[in-house]
Order: sequence, then structure tokens, then C-alpha cells
Amino acid sequence: MTVRVAVNGFGVIGRRVADAVGMQPDMQLAGIVDVATDWRMQVARERDFAIYGATAESVTALRAAGCEPRGDLGELLAVADVVVDCTPKGVDAQNRELYNAAGVRHIFQGGAKHDLAGHSFVACANYESALDRRSTRVVSCNTTSTVRTLFALRQAGLLGRARGVLVRRASDPWESHREGIMNTMVPEPVIPSHQGPDARTVLPDLDVVTIATKSPQNVGHLHHWIVDLARPASRDEVLAAFMAVSRIAFIRVSDGVAALNVTAELMKEIGRPRGDMWEVALWEDILTVEGKELMYAYQVDNQAIVVPETLDAIRALTGSERDGALSMRRTDESLGIRQRFL
Amino acid sequence: MTVRVAVNGFGVIGRRVADAVGMQPDMQLAGIVDVATDWRMQVARERDFAIYGATAESVTALRAAGCEPRGDLGELLAVADVVVDCTPKGVDAQNRELYNAAGVRHIFQGGAKHDLAGHSFVACANYESALDRRSTRVVSCNTTSTVRTLFALRQAGLLGRARGVLVRRASDPWESHREGIMNTMVPEPVIPSHQGPDARTVLPDLDVVTIATKSPQNVGHLHHWIVDLARPASRDEVLAAFMAVSRIAFIRVSDGVAALNVTAELMKEIGRPRGDMWEVALWEDILTVEGKELMYAYQVDNQAIVVPETLDAIRALTGSERDGALSMRRTDESLGIRQRFL
Amino acid sequence: MTVRVAVNGFGVIGRRVADAVGMQPDMQLAGIVDVATDWRMQVARERDFAIYGATAESVTALRAAGCEPRGDLGELLAVADVVVDCTPKGVDAQNRELYNAAGVRHIFQGGAKHDLAGHSFVACANYESALDRRSTRVVSCNTTSTVRTLFALRQAGLLGRARGVLVRRASDPWESHREGIMNTMVPEPVIPSHQGPDARTVLPDLDVVTIATKSPQNVGHLHHWIVDLARPASRDEVLAAFMAVSRIAFIRVSDGVAALNVTAELMKEIGRPRGDMWEVALWEDILTVEGKELMYAYQVDNQAIVVPETLDAIRALTGSERDGALSMRRTDESLGIRQRFL
Amino acid sequence: MTVRVAVNGFGVIGRRVADAVGMQPDMQLAGIVDVATDWRMQVARERDFAIYGATAESVTALRAAGCEPRGDLGELLAVADVVVDCTPKGVDAQNRELYNAAGVRHIFQGGAKHDLAGHSFVACANYESALDRRSTRVVSCNTTSTVRTLFALRQAGLLGRARGVLVRRASDPWESHREGIMNTMVPEPVIPSHQGPDARTVLPDLDVVTIATKSPQNVGHLHHWIVDLARPASRDEVLAAFMAVSRIAFIRVSDGVAALNVTAELMKEIGRPRGDMWEVALWEDILTVEGKELMYAYQVDNQAIVVPETLDAIRALTGSERDGALSMRRTDESLGIRQRFL
Repeated sequence: MTVRVAVNGFGVIGRRVADAVGMQPDMQLAGIVDVATDWRMQVARERDFAIYGATAESVTALRAAGCEPRGDLGELLAVADVVVDCTPKGVDAQNRELYNAAGVRHIFQGGAKHDLAGHSFVACANYESALDRRSTRVVSCNTTSTVRTLFALRQAGLLGRARGVLVRRASDPWESHREGIMNTMVPEPVIPSHQGPDARTVLPDLDVVTIATKSPQNVGHLHHWIVDLARPASRDEVLAAFMAVSRIAFIRVSDGVAALNVTAELMKEIGRPRGDMWEVALWEDILTVEGKELMYAYQVDNQAIVVPETLDAIRALTGSERDGALSMRRTDESLGIRQRFL
Repeated sequence: MTVRVAVNGFGVIGRRVADAVGMQPDMQLAGIVDVATDWRMQVARERDFAIYGATAESVTALRAAGCEPRGDLGELLAVADVVVDCTPKGVDAQNRELYNAAGVRHIFQGGAKHDLAGHSFVACANYESALDRRSTRVVSCNTTSTVRTLFALRQAGLLGRARGVLVRRASDPWESHREGIMNTMVPEPVIPSHQGPDARTVLPDLDVVTIATKSPQNVGHLHHWIVDLARPASRDEVLAAFMAVSRIAFIRVSDGVAALNVTAELMKEIGRPRGDMWEVALWEDILTVEGKELMYAYQVDNQAIVVPETLDAIRALTGSERDGALSMRRTDESLGIRQRFL
Repeated sequence: MTVRVAVNGFGVIGRRVADAVGMQPDMQLAGIVDVATDWRMQVARERDFAIYGATAESVTALRAAGCEPRGDLGELLAVADVVVDCTPKGVDAQNRELYNAAGVRHIFQGGAKHDLAGHSFVACANYESALDRRSTRVVSCNTTSTVRTLFALRQAGLLGRARGVLVRRASDPWESHREGIMNTMVPEPVIPSHQGPDARTVLPDLDVVTIATKSPQNVGHLHHWIVDLARPASRDEVLAAFMAVSRIAFIRVSDGVAALNVTAELMKEIGRPRGDMWEVALWEDILTVEGKELMYAYQVDNQAIVVPETLDAIRALTGSERDGALSMRRTDESLGIRQRFL
Repeated sequence: MTVRVAVNGFGVIGRRVADAVGMQPDMQLAGIVDVATDWRMQVARERDFAIYGATAESVTALRAAGCEPRGDLGELLAVADVVVDCTPKGVDAQNRELYNAAGVRHIFQGGAKHDLAGHSFVACANYESALDRRSTRVVSCNTTSTVRTLFALRQAGLLGRARGVLVRRASDPWESHREGIMNTMVPEPVIPSHQGPDARTVLPDLDVVTIATKSPQNVGHLHHWIVDLARPASRDEVLAAFMAVSRIAFIRVSDGVAALNVTAELMKEIGRPRGDMWEVALWEDILTVEGKELMYAYQVDNQAIVVPETLDAIRALTGSERDGALSMRRTDESLGIRQRFL
């Protein structure tokens, strides 16, 4: 069975999901939907994507822009098994009505609230609980990385209390000419920031608190964690715990991978499409264990990290693969996900 | 008695110390020393500072540049009671020999190692222990803010374990055209970073660990702290503890002071020379207490915060004021240090 | 006669104008007006400015915020001879109605259109034409610097065709946490940019074209000019032409003043309030003459450069000083405007 | 005949040249040389490049790092027809001795001086003059774009006097954590900057002057040009002139491609390796003709633009293709070079 996937919203995430779906033998990209008519849709046209307009007006505008839309969202839903909602904030609730009316399973992204889907998803942590559901939410980039890493520690019996300070990128590269910050840091006005509670939508029993702040760059997020271990453990045991979970890959300052920009360059050099990094890049040689206290730092590519989770969520909702480990392996192999970059 | 103060090194810190000394009725600026002949020394000349060259060659170069030096470092030391060493890294050990040979008390800055002076200084924490010493070291901007805030909690009986994530500015404004970083974050390659151990040179029994990272801005440092309280306490109790210590001042997101750049603007608006902020600016409304866990964030002006401590260190070494609280009050009143900015 | 000045809008320009008015023996600050209640108005309250609300609602909000407003804009206009309109874009047309109804002379800033006042002002170029007018517009920071420098060349009989490439700062420091750009340059979508035509509202016969682009910094503007001279001239002749006009001051790379950030530091070191630079800072040693072609670069502090022009405009409109040169001299002496910074 | 190409220096340019050589049916990558042993060489090892050390010490270090070097530079030169020198500044003169001693044709990059090779190369402008030479120099990124565009105008009989203001990126992405600038612009201390004279090493009769300045970003260069046309021409004629030359491609603000970051995103979306842009991206809708005056702006990817020229230079030196137009066509087709991006 080939799952027919619609991607609603052809922005930063939507474009990547569309490409990734196209790389899965068990999936087929039914079409993409957007309201924009700018360079992004023109590239979609050039790449022969099946384009749909979000509304009748969008269809008209897309036609005028030469994008040759095939119809509107409703028409796409009629030929899709599952829709990945990558629309901007604010329209997800009404979209849910459309998806439900069309009887199409649907996946929201991290910008949506948990309640919208009633289920939040990170593949390594709770794949099976999403099986055959009508909908789920792939959590945000920050939360995905938090859950992957804390799950790894928990699986090894190491996780006690976890406290994270998350230094976020201020905007995505494509819009940094209008949505940036300059020569400053902007702390979140509330502690705890939302990422900690959000992680508990996936793993309810986590003892996790996060503090977040924005930095004037668009490369990615840098997370710092201070974890009380549940039991004494060696540095090697901790590294082994992280390595036992997929989609966490080690980098090392000693290789010269000393900052966010270098990791991003490394991704380009190993041939990643768009320079994408689907893995949590965890600094192996920065990680420190002192007694029962663990401290580490990692980098998150906020544009790419949720792409593999979204593929798995598609398989889980449609039940096309009932074994989470097998779904993850398929995803990882199709994309070329790594355990080590060097 | 008027203490005659020499300032060796007329850089970011030296310029500010020289001005602050000039504002103290019980001190007199004996002269400043540098090797540079660029705009910084030309401004010093215009302001009629007594200029000395670090070496005979410097004297010649300064004379050629029209800065009218009065002699070399040795000649200045002959007429000084205390010298504040604000030279760049690497020359402090040899300077110590000169100071000792001249029999002049001396103060190093945070870039120097503790052992060079055998004593590290933060006024609120250990003023009296510096009385009549031959030398001390005013700790770095990051460490000064760490000690001030943790001392406040300790004094109130609240301090348990303290863990900080310090997001540092990457370079000072005056040299940001050649010493910057762009569109990236650079984590310190080692956890713990040096600031935690450095705080223990002042307060040896602190349970403190710091993680540090550089951000692409030159406004200041942003510290995030996660503290296990020694006993349950309310938010108000914690705020009172901070308010009980000088040189910590509150800011609030609710006033629109929502980021490093805004605080910096606020300093300009209240008329601070150079926009300097001598206080730790602690966000009152970000601070959170959850059970026995305290989390807060504050901003440090790395160019200015050590200036009041340096004035106090001058009084402590020379014994011109034996009461630390009185010295701090004099310093604070002369500079206009605040408890609240608004 | 003391001119009573109202400042409507207490933002980046309004704050500086209010302070500068307060430094003029022949002027008196009647009051300031704003709608904000945040840190900026709280500082105004602390400084004992006479505060007015823009509307009845503003008055209520200001009262609730403890700013003790004395009334609304109408009440302030009743006791003012002239109002400087420093409000954000979009409300100037309706403000003009209020000013005219109240019979108060008024000065707009560069964000307003020329037609609103029917007259555009740069002191050195057309002071006398503003005498006794009901209103004028002090042109923008970019245009002010353009007119000052081109007027200097024209006055010396040197000006032929002028072409400028203006690299603008992307936002002001106080709002750089929400209005910035990151790691990019943003060209103006139209050539010529508006500054060239805008300069002709002051000097109609200029042959000037500008190209503009935004850079990811908040320090100031950097202008590059390529000018065909009207006649062959030496480098010294050109420098003398610039020096003959007030509010153009030389800086030199050879002094280490090699970039926007260094000039900004220099302003702080010479004690400028807020680090303000009212002068065009023109690089003396970058300036080049090749045959009849002149090329030069200068820096503009977009927050401060229009302040002296605004003071002169007040005198011109009210006729309190009929000689432009004398008004400029008063302004320059009161602020400490320089011909050379070093 | 397959040309055996050595790449000496595996940095930003070397890596791209090595990949591009590998895509040419008429070329074969004989090997790469470097002194580094960090992540860059580890990626090279993973990709099975034939690695050589620059010196005996480098060979030892590379072996220790597991990079399995096959020998030193001398050994590689023995099996190469041509070597592309992509080493950092300062070693090119001594490298030339080695290349000449080995009798291997050699290509320098723009960092080298013209005299080192005695010939400077831009494919569209002077391919044939490089035929059978022992060496040439592919000019820098800025100069390459200058020559391509001015050559286009000259070929159409349109070029008179050309004046350019070049806003440069401050460092390359891979090293932006240690070689950046922050919140400032840094003008070149000399006008004219070196790019104008450098263009005349390729086209000696150009009337070109450039002014350069550095901006705090790492995406690419933004050039602004003001050109006196040799004769009146319409906008369409100018566009046609640019379109008649390869490796100039149009972008449009009206498509949303409004800033350097967006063009960079566009490159990623159309699947470019590393997001590379080999073309000059010229804003079609910013370009303006007023009378005999032409003004335009374009973007240069400083990491990629010289790659196609280097391929052509290889063919020219070795004489493997005597027709420049044919070489350029082969290069362009192999890489997927475009005339329009949308």
C-alpha cells in the first residue's frame, strides 16, 4: 500500500516534508497547498509538484502567477490518505474541521496546540500510541530535540531532574530580512518557557523545566542541559545512552566543529539537501559528568529536525507500519540519517 | 588623606576606572599609562589626563603623536599609592614585579589569575579581607555578577546549589569591527566554564557550576540561573534578598525593558556616562520560584560592572576606609548607583 | 523672548529634541506628548518633564502609570509657540489640523512628506527661506547629511553631478529586538531611492541620485559618494570646502577610527550625551580626488543628526533669530558641535 | 584526452573546484592537498578523495588523523597535468616554484597577485588569451562579477564609465565564529579599492573605479553600479546585453527575492550543492536607465562564483578545448548554470 500524502503549507517545513515524502517508497506526494504565489511556488511549479490553492481565491492567484494549480484544498483532500498541516499559526483549528469533514487523517506541527490533535508525537518515545489515530501533532523543533535526548537518558535508567537553557535562533533564514533581531539577546518573559511543559505532552512524567532566550542568528538552536542522574554513571555510559537512540549524532570541538556555523557547513559538505540536519548534533567532548550531575550541549536545525518524525507520524496514523523501530529505520535509511557525522 | 591612583592600561576598563577615580573626593588620578597612540590616547590628551608611556619606546611614540607624555610607568609609580592594572592579558606577571619593586599596592583585573594577587575581590562579599593587602584582583565581569547575586542569596540563608548558563557578548563595541562573530553561537569547549570556579576564589564554599557560550552581539552578557534553595521561600523573599545587596537593580519586561538592547537604551536615557551600567540588571518579573527551585535571568554590562568594585578595592588595599559598607556607599553615591532603574 | 517649545512624540528624536531645547537659553520646553506609558515615559517623569497625553485616553493611561500628565495635546498647544512633531508615520496630517487650529507654528520631521509643510529645511542651505513660516519639515537623517555635504561642495563652486550609495542601519537600537534583519543586506527595490529627490526639496537644482540598501546593524548610516566636480580641484580644496560648513567633522582611519562602531565609541569617550553625533563624520583620509572626480565616505548618526537643524528651524519659524549663521552658531556652541573630533 | 587535475588547498574554493572537476567528463581529479586534519579532511576521507599532504609533516599528521594520505604535493604533481592553487595567501610564490619545477601548468586564485601568473582570467572576456599558457590567475569573486557584467555591457557597445560600490560579506560561513564583525560597517581605508584596478588585469581599457566596504554578514557580496552608457539605450537593451553573456542570471524583487538571504534560500530550493550560486544574480526589476545613465545591483556568492571560471581555465591552459564558448557551454551544462532562476 502506498500512502497518499497531502502537504498543506509549502513553507520551511512543508517543502522539506514534501521532498522527504517523495523519497519514501511506501508514500506518494498527492499534492501541496499554499496561498503564496512568490518564488517558493514558482520553484514548486518548476519541480512539477501537484499544486493546489488553499482557497478558490488562491487557485485564481496561482493560475495568474503561472503555477497551474490543479484545484483547491478540498480537491486534494479527496485524493489523500493523510494531510500534513504545515500552515502558519492561526488557521489550524479551522483546517481540522476541513480534514475531519473530508475524513482524512492529519498531522499538525509544533506551532499547533496539543489539544488540537489530542496527541503529541516523537517517534522514539511514543510511536505506538499514535497507531491508527485520526490525528497527531509532531512537536516543535525544540521539543523534539528535548524529548529525543531525555528519552535516551530515561531509557538507560539515567534520567532524574532535567533543566535546560535553550538559546533559540531568532528567525528562519528565508525571512531574516524582515523578522530579525540585531545585536541583542531577548529572554522569554516567562520562566518556565513553554518547551518544558510541551515535552510532557509526549512523556508526561518528565521532571523538566526550560528557560528560553532568543539570539541574533538564524542557523539554529543551542540547548544547554543540566541533568541530575537517577544513579551514578560514567561519561561513557551516558554517551552510550545517547547513541542507543536514533537521530542523535555526535560532533566534536576537537574536530574543529566548534560552533553552530561550523556544524551547518559540515552538513553542506556531507551533501545534505539544503544543508539540512535531521539529527540532534550533540557535542561529545563538551559533555561532562560530575558525580550524579550531567551537563551537555547540542545544536538543533529548527528547519529540519521534525522531518523524520513527520514521516513516522504518517506511518503511525495510517498504520502502514505498526512497528515504530521499523518505521524509524526506513526513515533513517531513506534520508541518510547518521549516528556520527565524522 | 587622598589616595593617588595610577591606571596602567587605558582600554575599556582603564578609561572607566580613570573617570570614576576622578569622581571620588578621597582619590586623585595620578596618571594613566598605555602603549597605544590612537584616538583613545588623543582623547586622553584632550581631557588633560597625565599621560605616561608603558616603556621608553612608548614615551617616544606618544610624544611623536602629540600626546605629551610626562614619563614612563616607573616615573608614575613613584608618585602613586596604588596602581590599577588594566593591561591586556599576558603582561600582568612582569608588571607585578615592577609594582613590587616600586613598593606600590596594585589591583589586577579579572583577566589575571587569582594566584597573581593571592586574593580576589568583590566588595559585598569580602571587602574586609583585602584590607591592607599589597594586592588583590577584582574578578571579571561575569564572576562579579555571579558573586553579587549568589552572595545576596547566601546572606539571606537561601543559597543551595547554583547552576548558571552564561551567554556572553562576543567582543566589546570598540573592537567589534575586527573581533566579532557572525550568525552563530560558540559554546565554551569545556563544561564547567571557568566562571564557576572563579567565583570560589571569592566565596570558597559556593556550590556553583557555570556553562558559557558566546553570542553574536556586543551589548553585554545574559546570565540564566537555576538555584536549589536552602529552604522554601516565597518570590518576595527572594526579591528582598537581592534588594538587600547593593549593585543589583531590578528591571521589568512589563516596562518594555525586554531585551539587552532596551536596557542599554535605558542607561543612555537616565544619563549614564557612556551608557554604563554598574549594576546587575535583574529581571524582576522573569524571576520564578517553584517549590525550592529558583530561576532568574539578569544582564551584565561587561564594560562597567567592575568599576565600583575597583574603587572599593583601592580603599581596601590602602586602608583609607576600613568599613566595606561605608566604602560601597561612597562609591555608590558618587556614581549614582541605583536599586531600581524605574 | 523665550520661545516655548512643545515636543509631540517622545521617541528617538523627540527625546533628543527635548533635551536640546532645554539647553538653549532662548527656548523653554513647554512639555512633551506621547501615547506610550512604558520605560520611556517613566524616565520622563523622573526627569520632571511636563508630560501631556496625545488624547484623553492617553492622559488616563499616563495617569494610571503614575506619569502625572498635565493634560492633553490641546492643552499643551495652548501654551506653546511652536510644536516639534516627532510622532511616528501616519498621524502627521491630522496633527497639522490640530496645530493650525491652535495657531501654533509646527515643525515636522523627515518621515513626513514635503507637501505637508510646503517647505523643507536644512540650516546651512535655506535657513532664511523658513523665516516666519507657519511650518517646515526638517528633512530625514540621510537627506540632512546629503544636503550638508553637497551644499558645502556647491558653495565652493565644486559641485557637478552627485551619485550616492547609502548603506542604512536597519533599525534603531531601542527596538532592535523586534525590528531587525539578520545576516543579510536588503537593497531598496527602487533606484533611485527617495533620498536623492528629497534633497531637491531643499536645493532644487541639485543633480543628485541615490541608491540605498539596508545592512544588519543599528549604529548608523554609511554613505559613499561619487561626485563629478564642476572644475578641477585639489584634495585640499575639497577638504576646505567641507570644513567651511558647520556640522561636518573629520575622522581618520589613521587614528584608528576605522568603522562605524569606533566612531560611536569615540562619541562616548568625548562625553556626548547618549553617545550622540550631531555632525556628519567624514573620513578625511578616505576622501579621494582623481581628476575631476571626487569620492568620499561618511557616517551618519541617524538618531542625532537632525537635532541641531530642529533647533534652528524653531528659531527660523518664530523669527527669534533672523540670521541663519547666528542661529547655527548658538546651536553649535550650546551642544558642543565640532569641526574635528580629534 | 582526460585532463588530470590536482587541487592544492581544500578550503572553501578547493572543495568546490574538486567537486566540479569530478563532474566534468573531460577531467579527472588526481588528488587534493592540504595541511589541515580537521573535519574538512575527514569528510574528504569519507568521500574517498585521493589525499596528499602539503609537506612531509602534513603527510604524517594526516596519517595520524586517519586520513590515509597517498603522499605529498610533489608526488601528486608527478601525476597531474594541471594544478589549481587554492592555498591561503602567502604561499603562492613558493608554490609556483614547485609547479614550475614539476612542469605542471597551474592556476592561481584571486588572492594571488596578477604578476605571479602574468595573466588574469575571466572566461567570457579572455579565454583565448590563456590558451597553452603555463599559468593563469582566476580573478577574485568580486572582480569576476565585475568583469562579467562590464564585459556584457561592452560587448553590446554600451559601456562608458563604470563606478561601483561593493558591499562585501565580512567572512565565510565556516569561519564566522572567529573572523566576523558585529553591528558595524567597515569601509576600505583606500578609494579606489583594489577591485577596479584588478578588473583591468583582464580588460585593460575599462574605465572602472570601485569603492568597497564590509558588512556584518556572511551570505555574499552586494554590488551597486552607476554606469555612464556609451550611447542612449533602453532598459530592454541593457537587459538583453546582460542576458547575452553566460553566468549572469536575473532575480526579481517582485518574486519575493528581495534580499541576499532570500537568494541564498532560492539556491537551496533549486537543489544547488551547498546552496552554491555560480551566477551573478542581477536584480532585473531594480535595474534602472535614466538617459545615458544605468544603475543596477547584483549579488555575488563569493564561495562559488569562480568555480566555473576555474574549469574553463583548466581547459584553456591545457588546450583541451580551444574554443572558449564551447568550454563555457560544457561547464555550464555540467553544473546546471542558469540564465533565470525562476
